[in-house]
Amino acid sequence: DRPFVLIAGPCQLESREHALETAAALVEMTAKLGLGLIYKTSFDKANRTSLTSARGIGLEKGLPILAEIRESLGCATITDVHLPEQCQPTAEAVDVLQIPAFLSRQTDLILAAASTGAALNIKKGQFLAPWDMANVAKKAASTGNHRVLLCERGVSFGYNTLVSDMRSLPILAETGYPVIFDATHSVQQPGGQGATSGGERRFVPVLARAALAVGVAGVFMETHPDPDAAPSDGPNMVPMRAMPALLETLVAFDRLSKANPIPTL
Amino acid sequence: DRPFVLIAGPCQLESREHALETAAALVEMTAKLGLGLIYKTSFDKANRTSLTSARGIGLEKGLPILAEIRESLGCATITDVHLPEQCQPTAEAVDVLQIPAFLSRQTDLILAAASTGAALNIKKGQFLAPWDMANVAKKAASTGNHRVLLCERGVSFGYNTLVSDMRSLPILAETGYPVIFDATHSVQQPGGQGATSGGERRFVPVLARAALAVGVAGVFMETHPDPDAAPSDGPNMVPMRAMPALLETLVAFDRLSKANPIPTL
Amino acid sequence: DRPFVLIAGPCQLESREHALETAAALVEMTAKLGLGLIYKTSFDKANRTSLTSARGIGLEKGLPILAEIRESLGCATITDVHLPEQCQPTAEAVDVLQIPAFLSRQTDLILAAASTGAALNIKKGQFLAPWDMANVAKKAASTGNHRVLLCERGVSFGYNTLVSDMRSLPILAETGYPVIFDATHSVQQPGGQGATSGGERRFVPVLARAALAVGVAGVFMETHPDPDAAPSDGPNMVPMRAMPALLETLVAFDRLSKANPIPTL
Amino acid sequence: DRPFVLIAGPCQLESREHALETAAALVEMTAKLGLGLIYKTSFDKANRTSLTSARGIGLEKGLPILAEIRESLGCATITDVHLPEQCQPTAEAVDVLQIPAFLSRQTDLILAAASTGAALNIKKGQFLAPWDMANVAKKAASTGNHRVLLCERGVSFGYNTLVSDMRSLPILAETGYPVIFDATHSVQQPGGQGATSGGERRFVPVLARAALAVGVAGVFMETHPDPDAAPSDGPNMVPMRAMPALLETLVAFDRLSKANPIPTL
Repeated sequence: DRPFVLIAGPCQLESREHALETAAALVEMTAKLGLGLIYKTSFDKANRTSLTSARGIGLEKGLPILAEIRESLGCATITDVHLPEQCQPTAEAVDVLQIPAFLSRQTDLILAAASTGAALNIKKGQFLAPWDMANVAKKAASTGNHRVLLCERGVSFGYNTLVSDMRSLPILAETGYPVIFDATHSVQQPGGQGATSGGERRFVPVLARAALAVGVAGVFMETHPDPDAAPSDGPNMVPMRAMPALLETLVAFDRLSKANPIPTL
Repeated sequence: DRPFVLIAGPCQLESREHALETAAALVEMTAKLGLGLIYKTSFDKANRTSLTSARGIGLEKGLPILAEIRESLGCATITDVHLPEQCQPTAEAVDVLQIPAFLSRQTDLILAAASTGAALNIKKGQFLAPWDMANVAKKAASTGNHRVLLCERGVSFGYNTLVSDMRSLPILAETGYPVIFDATHSVQQPGGQGATSGGERRFVPVLARAALAVGVAGVFMETHPDPDAAPSDGPNMVPMRAMPALLETLVAFDRLSKANPIPTL
Repeated sequence: DRPFVLIAGPCQLESREHALETAAALVEMTAKLGLGLIYKTSFDKANRTSLTSARGIGLEKGLPILAEIRESLGCATITDVHLPEQCQPTAEAVDVLQIPAFLSRQTDLILAAASTGAALNIKKGQFLAPWDMANVAKKAASTGNHRVLLCERGVSFGYNTLVSDMRSLPILAETGYPVIFDATHSVQQPGGQGATSGGERRFVPVLARAALAVGVAGVFMETHPDPDAAPSDGPNMVPMRAMPALLETLVAFDRLSKANPIPTL
Repeated sequence: DRPFVLIAGPCQLESREHALETAAALVEMTAKLGLGLIYKTSFDKANRTSLTSARGIGLEKGLPILAEIRESLGCATITDVHLPEQCQPTAEAVDVLQIPAFLSRQTDLILAAASTGAALNIKKGQFLAPWDMANVAKKAASTGNHRVLLCERGVSFGYNTLVSDMRSLPILAETGYPVIFDATHSVQQPGGQGATSGGERRFVPVLARAALAVGVAGVFMETHPDPDAAPSDGPNMVPMRAMPALLETLVAFDRLSKANPIPTL
């Protein structure tokens, strides 16, 4: 029944300065609200819609920056891994390894990530039912590592659209693992702009409020000082200046929700 | 920004006594919470999965009971119509005519219902996008009757399942008409038990909380003293004894939601 | 194992001349190919997306024209009914009553239609699973009328789109009733053009070939001398001049299919 | 307009004997019918639903067996790769590298596979629209390797179900690359048996006939001497004894289809 943790940051690690600045801003913001923060950014966008989209600065340049953020700002950090061999070095630089949704069924990646002992945030595949994640979590747990977060980020609904099924949250929670709601990827329109993914930022607060009213352990929300100029996921990221007010409301919903657990009917 | 209105009652009008008792209980319950009530029950279930399922007592016996409830208890009432010729007599007995979801595209029914001057609650078809309801509302408004409620009750998602897309609520609200969230039909599993529809009652509070956190003008929720013995929709109705606690929480979410409108990002 | 029957004609009954001309052309076309024809046209489009779209000439003017076509051209005819009271007069003018997909769960309409003794073509609702149609067919059969056709016309798939599940055809056939594939409504994009429905005519032959390869008793296909000028369903109707070549291919697929029943694996 | 190529074999490479026997049987079978064969089997099932399911004999033991089959039987071979570093050694042992559907958006894997110069069979993700595959194919083509096959294998449709959209086949063909229809994975019910995936073998001929009637360059079909005893995908594999009759019918549909191209309406 503690306040939700915020997993936030810009989709891509654009530069050391950009990362440190956004992290510092988020640390300050969450401290004021008494929220835990896990700073999120990606050194490699390994599954862009199109080859010509920017992928990022890469693991070798990215990990030292992530390590610096953790050390200098004292905040927890998370980044995604795409291949088993990335898990060990990444686990040395960050606190939480994220398994991308498309890779949520790749046994070797999950085992390699879990074997590092780091916490995992496993995104639910857009092609999975919520109850399918119990088997996914078991793969991680088989290594003895039970520090697993399960993350809802929308399910395929026709072509180029996702829908967020709020029933998914209590179903995922039945595994016993904390549940995260990813409010920005859930509003993506995959491939919806031809060579890039679209998104509908305006629905981020809609879905985040709904998820907190249902009850989650954390909220994942990508944010950027200037989303429309971001190299990826611009259409669905939250402008950083809008974060404080949005978070304040979410904190209120979280409190109300945790004070009133869902009844058994 | 007024408190949400509750549209509630047993799915079927089972008998005069049953209807009066459940209505009286709901009147008392909502008065304590300062909520408006529209008592809902159906005199005919015209689209049962199977022919052998009970349909109800019919229009001729049902309307006088509905009229009696309105008069004796002073609460507003709603019931569904299935054919144009039912609209006028029904409008004389109840306050709100409900257009069933399957019939949300039947022009004549909507025109006949709207022409009575009664308020309409139009359920969004399981086969419609939220933006499709703007054209539906225009049909009603063409009669000069703008007393229209638009009701989300789930959208087809594969076979025998519905999903509730919370983005639908603000999209429906863009029409300017009040939006109702139907929390009990949204958890139906149409045809999911072979010759009857299944449902997952446990998700009613989940979806109702989510919808109120997003923001709605009203909540529709079928309830019954003993749902498992009800002639229809038992699997998704809320036991009446669970209503007071559930409503109390929903009132708190509604207040918080209306005090904090969704921001424009 | 007889050749498939063709249910075809313009979506709307536009005028006596238009109806007679298109019917005569289709009679000639199908006679050449040895195909049975049921001429289809609607006197009322009762569920248009928007109120401002043309609905048609109405029952009173339409039925005599349909009766004239049957008499003068000797071909079977079909038209859709929307209300129980339309069934009896319509059954006197045409051979087959069609139950629209949106109305496939309206018990009274099905009972009224079946009680006329006319054959019924029941379209599967866009919100139904194929196995749900067994209960629908039982409603008709309860009247003693077993002259029932079950028609696949696509299932909801996200918003404003349908998908044709070819598995549906053998599942529907398990009821024992002949199965029709509606190749033109299956390519509709309901509401996909804002105030009207879109459609992708180019996929009509794709889906029709697929359905015949699986095996069906009949194909439903709306056609028009000039679809782009038609008052409804233009985007998905087949230009009449393209029909002979298309039908010739479909006949070949039908023959091959019926000569090689689906094996039990 | 050449006959379709058959990509077939048991889901898992169970042993050298099993692989050689099934390959020899398929070589004989396809030779009689004048069909090209690409023998398919997997040395590793890297994305099983559950950790406790059998994964296979692994790359080191598997590749020599695949190489032996190619050499001794003279048939082309295909197997799937899951990690970039597997591409080069695998390309030395087989003719075609297969990109699994879940991995169809992993840029590095596609680039590594394409860079080997081997032909690629890229399965369309269950979460992708058919037009999304144009961007996927461009990633492969960026290496200068245009030997790409695009494979339809069903799209997410609600939970634990796929649907085969036959419109996908001509849309994929618009890329200019040959299109394969995977008839056995398309009938999978992912995660549908709790800890394993279910499937409905009886629909394999249904969907294969439909796809050939629409028109494809090849058919993918897993087969096994005793599917119900197979370590993976048993519920959807075709018993090998049923293959000759099934293929004979498919050849007839293929011929008819290629003799009658889809018309432009």
